Amino acid sequence: MRVVKAPAPPPEGVHDPRVGVIIVAAGASRRMTGEDALPLDKVFAPLAGKPMIAHTISAFQEYPQVGEIVLVLSQDNLERGRSLVAQGGWRRPVEVCLGGPRRQDSVKVGLQRLSPCSWIMVHDGARPCVTQELLQRALEEASTTGAAIPALPVNDTIKRVQDSFVLETLPRETLRAVQTPQVFRSELLRRAYQGDLDEVTDDASLVEKLGHRVKVFLGSYENIKVTTREDLVFAEAILRRRATP
Amino acid sequence: MRVVKAPAPPPEGVHDPRVGVIIVAAGASRRMTGEDALPLDKVFAPLAGKPMIAHTISAFQEYPQVGEIVLVLSQDNLERGRSLVAQGGWRRPVEVCLGGPRRQDSVKVGLQRLSPCSWIMVHDGARPCVTQELLQRALEEASTTGAAIPALPVNDTIKRVQDSFVLETLPRETLRAVQTPQVFRSELLRRAYQGDLDEVTDDASLVEKLGHRVKVFLGSYENIKVTTREDLVFAEAILRRRATP
Repeated sequence: MRVVKAPAPPPEGVHDPRVGVIIVAAGASRRMTGEDALPLDKVFAPLAGKPMIAHTISAFQEYPQVGEIVLVLSQDNLERGRSLVAQGGWRRPVEVCLGGPRRQDSVKVGLQRLSPCSWIMVHDGARPCVTQELLQRALEEASTTGAAIPALPVNDTIKRVQDSFVLETLPRETLRAVQTPQVFRSELLRRAYQGDLDEVTDDASLVEKLGHRVKVFLGSYENIKVTTREDLVFAEAILRRRATP
Repeated sequence: MRVVKAPAPPPEGVHDPRVGVIIVAAGASRRMTGEDALPLDKVFAPLAGKPMIAHTISAFQEYPQVGEIVLVLSQDNLERGRSLVAQGGWRRPVEVCLGGPRRQDSVKVGLQRLSPCSWIMVHDGARPCVTQELLQRALEEASTTGAAIPALPVNDTIKRVQDSFVLETLPRETLRAVQTPQVFRSELLRRAYQGDLDEVTDDASLVEKLGHRVKVFLGSYENIKVTTREDLVFAEAILRRRATP
């Protein structure tokens, strides 16, 4: 007897075209130190033939499920961003808006600007090497739990410190260094952002505060956050290698 | 009335010339991934005109308080290490010995080989950019508590994960990424290494297990651990810049 199986339904939400994207690039980069740190407008630094942020935007433009992109910039970069988007010739709309003092304030502005959608991806503008595979994986992982984030194992020994003394050495094998894109069901992220935004360093932590489970999957070693001049050289090498047929 | 103050005594231990050094470079580098990872014998990779490990040894040779250095290597590098040391022309004795399967096993071997001394510095062979200033600072900090380690603030968001879900987002401002050299009173480190060596990623954690306080001070952004080919390029730039008059 031949059993004719119905085709498996697509993972919930994965084929939903209404994915909204918030790209945050309004940071004052206060954590950078040393002479190798890049200046404020680093996301417009030239990288493999175009501004860094254009690579980041392009990755989301190419991803089929994306409906709309909100690009959140600092005051200094606002005009530059609008000009870039006007010339971009992209298929999907990109709205440029002014961010807030902290990253979380900027994401909140982005949420207010974003049209209604089913899924929201939040991504660092300074991660221009994000791939289609990572976006696909992120959306698939989020489809099972409503919230998913890429992360890498941690190589350093990390300790908790108080008043210049060690409080605790953290078990390294349980630690992950978080990347973006972080992907959430729209209503979940919007609810999370109604809470207290103090001492927040990523979007998932707000969702965790709601008691919602956040899935962690293996990110990409190439999905670096460009912070120093060395990172810029590294990102250039990654992007040029990919462009080589 | 003129009060004649006695000169302050030197910080306890700082002027004690009997500092023993353990340089560990016996690792199998299992944590490296990707095509950019360096091969097993990375500590002998050419760097600014000489093998990486020669830079590391030289830094401790130049530090006045050092009496003896034990260099712990893997089987594959043992002969190469002995040959390097034989040619080195260094003032202070360097003993080359075979390490164990894990980093902590290698440090334990180093402790057995080291002559009696007052202070012990443990350093990663793959951190060739360590400076005299960092060694001096480490010994000064250790002199107040018996145990001191350099560390840097953490830029990534770090989460604790279990079964691919977030357990906890750690408060970033309390986290530090630990470097070497880690400096200890000799008897304290020897006592610490009599304990259980499982799941140990740095020497200080064993001292912490004894209940002893470990001082944390600001390390150096240039004191990188060379793990990838990009790190090698970065280390070369750092060392060449310093060599330029």
